[in-house]
Amino acid sequence: MKLWAGRFGKDTDTEVDSFNSSLPFDSRLFRQDIIGSVAHAKMLGKIGVLGAEDVKAICEGLGAILEDIESGNIEIGGAEDIHMFVEALLTERIGDGGKRLHTARSRNDQVALDLRLYAGDAISSVVSSIISFQSTLLDMAASHLDTIMPGYTHLQRAQPITLAHHLMAWAEMLRRDVTRFEDARGRLDSMPLGSGALAGTTYPLDRGFVANELGFADISRNSLDAVSDRDFVLETLSCLSILMAHLSRMAEEVILWTSFEFGFAELDDAFATGSSIMPQKKNPDVAELVRGKAGRVFGSLTAMLTVMKGLPLAYNKDMQEDKEGLFDAFDTVTACLSVFPPMVASMTFNPKAMRSAAANGFLNATDAADYLVKKGLPFREAYNIVGRLVRLCAERGRTLETLELKEYRDISPVFSEDVFDAIALETCVGARNVPGGPAPEAVCAHINETKKFIKLHVK
Amino acid sequence: MKLWAGRFGKDTDTEVDSFNSSLPFDSRLFRQDIIGSVAHAKMLGKIGVLGAEDVKAICEGLGAILEDIESGNIEIGGAEDIHMFVEALLTERIGDGGKRLHTARSRNDQVALDLRLYAGDAISSVVSSIISFQSTLLDMAASHLDTIMPGYTHLQRAQPITLAHHLMAWAEMLRRDVTRFEDARGRLDSMPLGSGALAGTTYPLDRGFVANELGFADISRNSLDAVSDRDFVLETLSCLSILMAHLSRMAEEVILWTSFEFGFAELDDAFATGSSIMPQKKNPDVAELVRGKAGRVFGSLTAMLTVMKGLPLAYNKDMQEDKEGLFDAFDTVTACLSVFPPMVASMTFNPKAMRSAAANGFLNATDAADYLVKKGLPFREAYNIVGRLVRLCAERGRTLETLELKEYRDISPVFSEDVFDAIALETCVGARNVPGGPAPEAVCAHINETKKFIKLHVK
Amino acid sequence: MKLWAGRFGKDTDTEVDSFNSSLPFDSRLFRQDIIGSVAHAKMLGKIGVLGAEDVKAICEGLGAILEDIESGNIEIGGAEDIHMFVEALLTERIGDGGKRLHTARSRNDQVALDLRLYAGDAISSVVSSIISFQSTLLDMAASHLDTIMPGYTHLQRAQPITLAHHLMAWAEMLRRDVTRFEDARGRLDSMPLGSGALAGTTYPLDRGFVANELGFADISRNSLDAVSDRDFVLETLSCLSILMAHLSRMAEEVILWTSFEFGFAELDDAFATGSSIMPQKKNPDVAELVRGKAGRVFGSLTAMLTVMKGLPLAYNKDMQEDKEGLFDAFDTVTACLSVFPPMVASMTFNPKAMRSAAANGFLNATDAADYLVKKGLPFREAYNIVGRLVRLCAERGRTLETLELKEYRDISPVFSEDVFDAIALETCVGARNVPGGPAPEAVCAHINETKKFIKLHVK
Amino acid sequence: MKLWAGRFGKDTDTEVDSFNSSLPFDSRLFRQDIIGSVAHAKMLGKIGVLGAEDVKAICEGLGAILEDIESGNIEIGGAEDIHMFVEALLTERIGDGGKRLHTARSRNDQVALDLRLYAGDAISSVVSSIISFQSTLLDMAASHLDTIMPGYTHLQRAQPITLAHHLMAWAEMLRRDVTRFEDARGRLDSMPLGSGALAGTTYPLDRGFVANELGFADISRNSLDAVSDRDFVLETLSCLSILMAHLSRMAEEVILWTSFEFGFAELDDAFATGSSIMPQKKNPDVAELVRGKAGRVFGSLTAMLTVMKGLPLAYNKDMQEDKEGLFDAFDTVTACLSVFPPMVASMTFNPKAMRSAAANGFLNATDAADYLVKKGLPFREAYNIVGRLVRLCAERGRTLETLELKEYRDISPVFSEDVFDAIALETCVGARNVPGGPAPEAVCAHINETKKFIKLHVK
Repeated sequence: MKLWAGRFGKDTDTEVDSFNSSLPFDSRLFRQDIIGSVAHAKMLGKIGVLGAEDVKAICEGLGAILEDIESGNIEIGGAEDIHMFVEALLTERIGDGGKRLHTARSRNDQVALDLRLYAGDAISSVVSSIISFQSTLLDMAASHLDTIMPGYTHLQRAQPITLAHHLMAWAEMLRRDVTRFEDARGRLDSMPLGSGALAGTTYPLDRGFVANELGFADISRNSLDAVSDRDFVLETLSCLSILMAHLSRMAEEVILWTSFEFGFAELDDAFATGSSIMPQKKNPDVAELVRGKAGRVFGSLTAMLTVMKGLPLAYNKDMQEDKEGLFDAFDTVTACLSVFPPMVASMTFNPKAMRSAAANGFLNATDAADYLVKKGLPFREAYNIVGRLVRLCAERGRTLETLELKEYRDISPVFSEDVFDAIALETCVGARNVPGGPAPEAVCAHINETKKFIKLHVK
Repeated sequence: MKLWAGRFGKDTDTEVDSFNSSLPFDSRLFRQDIIGSVAHAKMLGKIGVLGAEDVKAICEGLGAILEDIESGNIEIGGAEDIHMFVEALLTERIGDGGKRLHTARSRNDQVALDLRLYAGDAISSVVSSIISFQSTLLDMAASHLDTIMPGYTHLQRAQPITLAHHLMAWAEMLRRDVTRFEDARGRLDSMPLGSGALAGTTYPLDRGFVANELGFADISRNSLDAVSDRDFVLETLSCLSILMAHLSRMAEEVILWTSFEFGFAELDDAFATGSSIMPQKKNPDVAELVRGKAGRVFGSLTAMLTVMKGLPLAYNKDMQEDKEGLFDAFDTVTACLSVFPPMVASMTFNPKAMRSAAANGFLNATDAADYLVKKGLPFREAYNIVGRLVRLCAERGRTLETLELKEYRDISPVFSEDVFDAIALETCVGARNVPGGPAPEAVCAHINETKKFIKLHVK
Repeated sequence: MKLWAGRFGKDTDTEVDSFNSSLPFDSRLFRQDIIGSVAHAKMLGKIGVLGAEDVKAICEGLGAILEDIESGNIEIGGAEDIHMFVEALLTERIGDGGKRLHTARSRNDQVALDLRLYAGDAISSVVSSIISFQSTLLDMAASHLDTIMPGYTHLQRAQPITLAHHLMAWAEMLRRDVTRFEDARGRLDSMPLGSGALAGTTYPLDRGFVANELGFADISRNSLDAVSDRDFVLETLSCLSILMAHLSRMAEEVILWTSFEFGFAELDDAFATGSSIMPQKKNPDVAELVRGKAGRVFGSLTAMLTVMKGLPLAYNKDMQEDKEGLFDAFDTVTACLSVFPPMVASMTFNPKAMRSAAANGFLNATDAADYLVKKGLPFREAYNIVGRLVRLCAERGRTLETLELKEYRDISPVFSEDVFDAIALETCVGARNVPGGPAPEAVCAHINETKKFIKLHVK
Repeated sequence: MKLWAGRFGKDTDTEVDSFNSSLPFDSRLFRQDIIGSVAHAKMLGKIGVLGAEDVKAICEGLGAILEDIESGNIEIGGAEDIHMFVEALLTERIGDGGKRLHTARSRNDQVALDLRLYAGDAISSVVSSIISFQSTLLDMAASHLDTIMPGYTHLQRAQPITLAHHLMAWAEMLRRDVTRFEDARGRLDSMPLGSGALAGTTYPLDRGFVANELGFADISRNSLDAVSDRDFVLETLSCLSILMAHLSRMAEEVILWTSFEFGFAELDDAFATGSSIMPQKKNPDVAELVRGKAGRVFGSLTAMLTVMKGLPLAYNKDMQEDKEGLFDAFDTVTACLSVFPPMVASMTFNPKAMRSAAANGFLNATDAADYLVKKGLPFREAYNIVGRLVRLCAERGRTLETLELKEYRDISPVFSEDVFDAIALETCVGARNVPGGPAPEAVCAHINETKKFIKLHVK
């Protein structure tokens, strides 16, 4: 019999039971549910609502249940949700004391607590993985400070950069992810227990004690809001979505770089797959899946925004839909962060191919223009002169390096012998020594600064 | 060893294997995979690529595997995907013939086939459920032709209608769903096998034969497109999303109607739930969940659109993300269609409360205005006169029915005794006898017309 | 004074007026609003609710207003919405007859009518543009039946196809768009006028007459539904989203093909742009914008699904949000279809580069395996043998064409001299003559079949 | 002639020009573009790249242009984008110095700067509006500390709360919005100029000086990332979406409260609208539009996530799609925040109706159960007893207040006379004095604490 059956004339339809049940997915919250209950019981003891022996029995009983679940001794099942499962089992084991555990609590504030605990831990774990990926990138970057490659805009070769510079762009995206998740974590760090079903409780609870036991920074400030609020789910899904957008961009670049056409890198055999029909294929499946899975996480965000839109306060059953999407998004991101970084780390780069690509496509055209500007021409004029040079090269199958000085001077007498130094790839890269630029010195400084960031944010 | 391992120097990383594997979810396609393979084998036999004994062994072997899976004799597992699982098991059971089954086929066209077969069947099943819900609504409507209730706009009482009329609005939404799904089903009815990995095959396949065996109306017309195309997933998810939008609107109305404030209906105990803390509660959990689950299906649509955006042809691994969202959307819709209709059918309506609500709120104000128009006033003038009457009623705590004729005539001399007949609720409803209107006759006609529609569309 | 001001004690706040006003965007519906009103007036005349002289004055007055708006003689402004703008202007011009036009009509059914008329026309126009793009592709394909290029999966070179075959894959995607839009158009072809605010009307309207005048196939069947329904907006946005997904995929391929790395095609100068700082750049801005704009249309779909979720019947003001997203999506698609096809048509392909790409990357490996199968080996064995050959080639810097027969036979004695014919690119493509395959004959058949399709669907 | 025309053989197609042009929407960035250019020019002067007279001419010229635009003396038009418009006008006015302004800068870093400046300001403005709405709610709450109303879960009356408590739940949602926006603002506070097109610049720029001039806290750390990054757009759209989810929930409650059925509040005439056909209607259009517009902002978020998914570094033209969605989302939120708060503030509440609703529906059932728990029963038993009492009341048309003590004791002898005090509404509310609860004292504390929050966050 359901705990709320008292008023009802008949049993719930069994299909309805299964439709309503959250146990198949909220069973994942067993640990959070149990430690939350332990803290609640201790507090009820502290304020004298529960006797010392009840508290002891409850805490020991819950501890044993936690152990049994974790060791696989018992299987979760046969209840409406994880809260009822734990409570029923506890009551079965310790008797009436188990029933008293629910005093001054509702499933509405209980589930708000459990999910916050879960999300907080999961965020911390994602942050660790991100930072570890950053470290990998830093190491890789450090050994490619001089590996020249083309920088692209519009997927057209644009200006020469280095592989280190490119990898540090990835590290920089991830840096924003770290603080974004930390901010989200900070905002969910508010303990909802004591909000009851929606209107608090008549017991003189010591909510601060519970918060402290569970490591929360604060207690929620309005009971109606505390059971209605799923901002932390929305904000976490936003953070996860932005992270996946980042990973999808890196994945796209891995796919391009390992294509026959680019040839900048080759995947390690352990991170590539073949084709069931084409014996020559080496497919970047991991990168493709990561790119595709961005959609899945975006979808969970859309789903949850839709769920919350227009819901009156306080708790509505619609909000039960908060869990599966959040769990799936965390699982997806965790899986991506467990295979994508080692895939990147194990790639073999082809510096020769990168340099050769950088040497073709007039990537030093901007430098040629800058050369003219330094000789005193306005930028727009310099730009036009070099535009004409590029066109001439394209027509004659030449590059800027291989034009004669005479050909330069035919177009503008401002050119002299030093132009060739000015447009050499190493010069081009080395001269871009502005903070944030690709010059080895600038990238080195960025690497060192990021190391400090990591030291501060790793826990 | 993987089937494509020939070229590779080492094994795939095990985490990568699990990341890439689709078996945990595409195992659901076992039936489609097997019947597709049977048709393919028969065709290979027909064109002489496979010998008769091979064909026989393959077909019998596959039949046995299908039976074993369905009866639970074997469990699916231990392979990259369902295609490899079936093929490996077949080869284990019948030897080399099993290996020959994959001739002139790739997993790219195979999965396109399996998913089309699945989606086609699942759509048919959803359509059946929708039609069955429509029938329920028709029956309910037929017994509420005279049950007057308020019609709302802006959630403000607007004009009197009947419960039958309201329920037939729901039936009409569902009618569009039926043809929308049928159109989607028609558009996916194209057999992709023979497209190979992307470029067809060098074997002289009889693709029409396979299409015929599997009940397809047509064969795909371009192999590159056939393995790249997931339009049918997108279109199906769109149809499912629109259906869920409909269900979410009905659910919202059930929630309103069963609130204390409206009191138009009560849920059957078998379709309501209580609260763990508030003994008086009777919550419309089913309706709330249905409303919330709209978000989940919208999310799957967003996810799949994101996945497909910007993908070059032909097959990319990103497209493996097509399945879980589609399956979840079908499961969600199926679950909703299995509990929501009986919940609606078992609701107890409260005609007295509905009528009383219709009698308060000046729902006959439009009729009063129409009365004046029929007496020759332009509509906008009539509207203004009645606006002033309503204001007067509101100030004096009266309704239009309870005003004195004198009070009417003080505002406009056009009013005479017959105004009271003109604004009686039954008159108001009965007079709205335009096709589509709430008059019992009009609703009756709509019910009958919908019965014909159902007869044509039920299979 | 607002038309509904009668009951109200004070004016609306001016910021509220501007917040509520739809005129800035629904002014676009002026033509639909006017022709709808003409049909309504004629019908009111036909059933005797309006006198002949009123009908004449109204129709002439509306005709003159339409002319004045189209010629720019009058500017739309100063009203709540387009309906009130037209009605007020008409009344100003013809007097009381103008006021009588609104008899038996509400803005709720009026806007439902206007938007359906608009969407129907806009769909037809999109369909025309799609078909025209298809024709372009057919012409291009016809001249590239023998232009060999690599077919890709996972962005890895996979098997040889032709440019014609690839372009026909695009044409095939568009074909599904055509019928999908036609189905959507068919489903919105239902005339809502006569539904009133929500509950029909007490006038004996001839709704079929109005439907006929306006070219509708049918009349709506339930007044409550008719004013609440925005399925046609959702379904149209779905169709537009799927079309944009297609265009984004084509755009991605254009971006790849015109990259330095692929070099398969060059954009015409009229369809490319340069960089403000890099004189050498030739950027595929059009293709990039088309790819990006997919997001915008998906966003409109998400928006409208969210709007409709959980709305009770009948009309709610939320639904005013239906227009801007739909208009923007139509405008976006129309703009894309006006620049992307001519950009594609004006591209210069580089058949030499395509062929050279097809000749590298072991694209004939499948054919080598098929060769072995035709000699009697099971496919999986053949596959393994060729896998080893590919590996050997990769190690020795060779291709399958340039291996010695001896080297072949060292790995499998099944090979003989005819292997070289079997793996020549022209052989590989020509042999893929299955329906849907890249062989010139097969593609030719597809082109001809598509011509027939176009003939049937062009209006 | 375009600035990049040098290399091109012919003009861009005019439709392409209009397709590519961002001026129709980025014209909004004129102020940001100009102050960014002033800072850049000053810095170029400081490092000696520009002469003092050039700097002076540029700064004065830009200042004059800004004034002319703001005063309406000149109209923006006739250029590709706002950057080119300003530069061209400047050059026209001051000659060659204008051309030199673009030295060491690209439109890629320029637009990144402009949009960050814009978003930062727009966020600050939104935060101000939110805080102002909070203040309104605080004032309202302070005068409704004792206004008892039903608290709902599942839209079923659950437990008694006060209007003050409910309004403070709204204030609490908004509080999270404030810090969420502040965090987003902090994360975008990084100056991108100096990143050039993607690879920095060869000039020894003083980027810190520019950051300082423009009030940025930091400079971007990687040039490739700085021009590719649109995280701040995504994060801002997330914050705006969550805010709109909040407003949609409040709007839903306003719609419910002002319905005839609830009757908890009446809209001020200045914030309500009527119907064109039903003279009695008073519609909550503002609240409905706010609810609906949530969809629009969610749609912009979906759009931008889709745009960014899978984009390789660095700048791609797709990213031009960042502006319209962001601007529209800011405009939408700004409009909502300008009409919704005064609409709420001007509502007339009906405390009698609220109290009456709280007195019906067994809202004190939990208190009855708590009463029994305090007498020593386990909660689950107490719950069951009260469940039976409620059922008995429902059958007999009674409330818990109006049952006889005997009837109580028939069900459980634990009840005694003091039960009536325990379940009085004022007792129920007053006893919920836990932090966050509805007791006047607790709500008062929350109001005061929020005042402190506001003082800290208002600028």
